[in-house]
Amino acid sequence: MSANPLLAITMGDVNGIGPEILAKALARPEPWAVCEPVILGDKTAYDQARRFALHAPEAVAISDLTHWQPRQGQVALMDAGHAGPLGRPGALDAEAGSAAVAWIVHAARLAKDGVVAGMVTCPINKEGIALAGCPHAGHTSLIAEVTGAADYRMCLFTDTMRIVHITAHLSLRDAVAAVKRDRILESIRIGHDALNRIQTPQQRIAVAGLNPHAGENGQFGREEIEEIRPAVAQARAEGIDCSGPWPPDTVFKRMRDGEFEMVIAMYHDQGHIPLKLIAMDEGVNVTLGIPIVRTSVDHGTAYDIAGKGIAREHSLCAAIRLAAQLSQRQGVRA
Amino acid sequence: MSANPLLAITMGDVNGIGPEILAKALARPEPWAVCEPVILGDKTAYDQARRFALHAPEAVAISDLTHWQPRQGQVALMDAGHAGPLGRPGALDAEAGSAAVAWIVHAARLAKDGVVAGMVTCPINKEGIALAGCPHAGHTSLIAEVTGAADYRMCLFTDTMRIVHITAHLSLRDAVAAVKRDRILESIRIGHDALNRIQTPQQRIAVAGLNPHAGENGQFGREEIEEIRPAVAQARAEGIDCSGPWPPDTVFKRMRDGEFEMVIAMYHDQGHIPLKLIAMDEGVNVTLGIPIVRTSVDHGTAYDIAGKGIAREHSLCAAIRLAAQLSQRQGVRA
Repeated sequence: MSANPLLAITMGDVNGIGPEILAKALARPEPWAVCEPVILGDKTAYDQARRFALHAPEAVAISDLTHWQPRQGQVALMDAGHAGPLGRPGALDAEAGSAAVAWIVHAARLAKDGVVAGMVTCPINKEGIALAGCPHAGHTSLIAEVTGAADYRMCLFTDTMRIVHITAHLSLRDAVAAVKRDRILESIRIGHDALNRIQTPQQRIAVAGLNPHAGENGQFGREEIEEIRPAVAQARAEGIDCSGPWPPDTVFKRMRDGEFEMVIAMYHDQGHIPLKLIAMDEGVNVTLGIPIVRTSVDHGTAYDIAGKGIAREHSLCAAIRLAAQLSQRQGVRA
Repeated sequence: MSANPLLAITMGDVNGIGPEILAKALARPEPWAVCEPVILGDKTAYDQARRFALHAPEAVAISDLTHWQPRQGQVALMDAGHAGPLGRPGALDAEAGSAAVAWIVHAARLAKDGVVAGMVTCPINKEGIALAGCPHAGHTSLIAEVTGAADYRMCLFTDTMRIVHITAHLSLRDAVAAVKRDRILESIRIGHDALNRIQTPQQRIAVAGLNPHAGENGQFGREEIEEIRPAVAQARAEGIDCSGPWPPDTVFKRMRDGEFEMVIAMYHDQGHIPLKLIAMDEGVNVTLGIPIVRTSVDHGTAYDIAGKGIAREHSLCAAIRLAAQLSQRQGVRA
């Protein structure tokens, strides 16, 4: 075994760009410098995708990691009993959805059992997993269930912008109602723990307001006064370097300009709008607050360009790098 | 009179950067290529600010525009009975607030009476005008009152991004409740009218969703289905080139990349976050839906750098240019 952490990388929907970005990412030296990857996916799909990546390693099918000895030019691949289906780029397919779910569940269990240090996920198709009878809307709630997580935080990270959302897929009306002191405080703690693990030189956390101009002293909205400020005060009392609530329309620019390492966002789009505008390709989705390390590409299956060799592997490379960073000090708080 | 439209430019708070950016903007040839400017402000403050702008025109104090004959190197200045106070850069001052209000009211009346084609405003200090006894939170509601406007839309424009907000300074909770079909439809119409006046080659309007992923078919939030979609359908039936609701976290990037000329935003920060992130200096604030042309710089008084000669005039230049464009076909719909 190498000294680098073992990371399980799920292939996602075989009909999307997952196999291609996997082959392209593993053809690069960067992932190998920070981790020992293990693919959870279909061998045929991976082998076919290698045509787009000259230096992609050969996949060696294994059924468990006990006897796996990494060799130069090889990567371990497990299919968790779900070989296939044959990839049909761009096709919505229940079998593809079913296989994707099996790989995710297996990877999450390996991570939970400590066999791997973390997991990285390629995109799935929501309709595909629904056709396969999976009741989850996406990766995150499925992984939370497998790992027994009571709660989690959806986050978006780039090299310079790190955003922790206190809620994710709620209607904006419900998201506003969820802006509560305890939830904000726990988000700050979770974010602070992640900064600790990544070992950023500084760990300045900015907490965004909810309302325009952060409410202007209660003129439009009182959540800043009643919920956010007390949460910031408590976090500071715990020794966390955090500030706010800040006006939402400038706090992300301030982070990008180097004033903060992280912003706690009060709802999904408050963080997604700035991040997607600036970092379409290098964004990484991170699930914090669960007992395993899990990162994901920040894009979908891209059925429209699947099988064409033009998908970009940058987000996957960034997701692998971040998972490796988070793995290094996993357990510091968990 | 030149063939260019007369534009009243209010100086704003004399203790802020208004006098300086005015002098710097008028020292450039661009404003003069598109309008005939008239300053509403204090002559001494302007004269002092000329030290930062070698080619700024000499101000000629007049009391009305009837006999004004523009000459090269001169600009008309009216103080509306409020000369002074003596500028004290960075100082909060009731008298400065009072003068700023008088200049705004006078400019709005000139525009309403058709004496000028529109008005452009430099920043005021909210506390300053409150100290002066003005009951308005800012320019817009004051101007709406003077011009008898029942309603208005706050907008942010750059050369490539144009955002119309259906509401402005409401708490997010109240803003969500204001996402109603009629309000959205009227915003689309108002935005379309502005594109007509600016004469963009195409006039593609994207309507943003309210909820994450535009609600994913009602999974989180039903405003897209019940309010936004019907408004888009009605606008299309009226011949307006509009589409949506689109997922909020990618629609602004799509506009920046050239897919749309305008986005209708469902709340203040939905539009302010992306615009401030990308265009801190060239953003222009526009008030649409009122019976006059009015644009404004997209920044505050910047007391911290007032009187130092380092303020940038770019937003004011852009505001002047946009007001001139909007003036050209004023009345097409109003």
